[in-house]
Amino acid sequence: MEKTEEKQKRNKLVIICSKGSLDMAYPPLMLATTAAAMGMEVDLYFTFWGMNMISKKTIDSMKISPVGNAALPIPNILGMIPGMTSMMTSMMQKKMQKIKMPSIREMIATAKESGVRFHACSNTMEIMGFKKEDLIPEVDDVIGAATYLDMASEDAITLFV
Amino acid sequence: MEKTEEKQKRNKLVIICSKGSLDMAYPPLMLATTAAAMGMEVDLYFTFWGMNMISKKTIDSMKISPVGNAALPIPNILGMIPGMTSMMTSMMQKKMQKIKMPSIREMIATAKESGVRFHACSNTMEIMGFKKEDLIPEVDDVIGAATYLDMASEDAITLFV
Amino acid sequence: MEKTEEKQKRNKLVIICSKGSLDMAYPPLMLATTAAAMGMEVDLYFTFWGMNMISKKTIDSMKISPVGNAALPIPNILGMIPGMTSMMTSMMQKKMQKIKMPSIREMIATAKESGVRFHACSNTMEIMGFKKEDLIPEVDDVIGAATYLDMASEDAITLFV
Repeated sequence: MEKTEEKQKRNKLVIICSKGSLDMAYPPLMLATTAAAMGMEVDLYFTFWGMNMISKKTIDSMKISPVGNAALPIPNILGMIPGMTSMMTSMMQKKMQKIKMPSIREMIATAKESGVRFHACSNTMEIMGFKKEDLIPEVDDVIGAATYLDMASEDAITLFV
Repeated sequence: MEKTEEKQKRNKLVIICSKGSLDMAYPPLMLATTAAAMGMEVDLYFTFWGMNMISKKTIDSMKISPVGNAALPIPNILGMIPGMTSMMTSMMQKKMQKIKMPSIREMIATAKESGVRFHACSNTMEIMGFKKEDLIPEVDDVIGAATYLDMASEDAITLFV
Repeated sequence: MEKTEEKQKRNKLVIICSKGSLDMAYPPLMLATTAAAMGMEVDLYFTFWGMNMISKKTIDSMKISPVGNAALPIPNILGMIPGMTSMMTSMMQKKMQKIKMPSIREMIATAKESGVRFHACSNTMEIMGFKKEDLIPEVDDVIGAATYLDMASEDAITLFV
């Protein structure tokens, strides 16, 4: 009781998004939109394959991979058949649509409207040859690791996805 | 010194378990059982492929994938041969048994006895078509992202596995 | 305003490194060296496939896998062709060299010089049959999950990569 009184709840969420597959794009966006709806400050920092989520070229074509994912119930040899990746992806998309789950682009728009901030990693931009105009307009800025650390050290809930 | 005196140590661990492979099931469970043994409060939140860890159907058959894992010393073309996934998995299981590492089911039972709480993600249940009775009895409840954020904001050590 | 005054910024970063691929080795090392340069205390805890980053045998030959990575723009069937993994890896290495990005070995040396501490997971050592002499000299010690939790509970920014 005393502990609760002397300690404030954390009111900030800072997530590093480093994955480029559809299944790992949903968790940070779901957490971000929920946190923003609860009145929390939210910052998303996109790095490495996470750039797929904020690049104009890839945002609408993110995929689930049917190989190398031990959680999927198909043997790897079947996953190799051309067309399997898009079949798995469209299967998941259908399930998502059935429960009216918004697309990645829609979730990003909702997040942006609720005040979530989008940051692209400057190092990744350089390594992968991205320019600011390759990114969706929701991206607020291009920042380095030092700026991320500044945000994360403000007593935020920190996650690396 | 002053800093140590004015600041209490964090006594809570909240982990999101999002992976469905055997190798990524061990780290959160090892941390959870150790933290509980140290007297910490522990909450595990299972989402996406992490449902494999708490689903009756999959808990005993989690696998390591030999493809798409750059850390394993076999070329991808060999990983494609049918039977390779189960060979790699049983190799790891043998190593685990040799040092008397408990199975996922045993670790979950131990964690539960030490007070670790198990939460299933409501959104994932809907997307993947899971019902409460498909989950192992150790699962305490089905919760949404808002409840997770509430737990995580209580000054917990937060991790996304 | 008041909140900022009563609350100190966190000055510690504790990262679990659990992945063995080149692309997931860079993020923790970039964060670690940046944090150390900013005067933060940094601890890296290597577990599971993350041992690849601190093992003498594997530190110089970490790879990007072209299969099972939905973020890469090649179909899985092509990823299967022998030589594809090393082709993808050398493509990324060339891009890295072009922007003068140091190698994993160089980044670890820099991190060590700036005071970053390197810890190997005792359980992983046992499971995978590693001995202390198999590890690079930069490794400070071999510790268990309890010691990691002690470090993480000191109000650190915590990440699981």
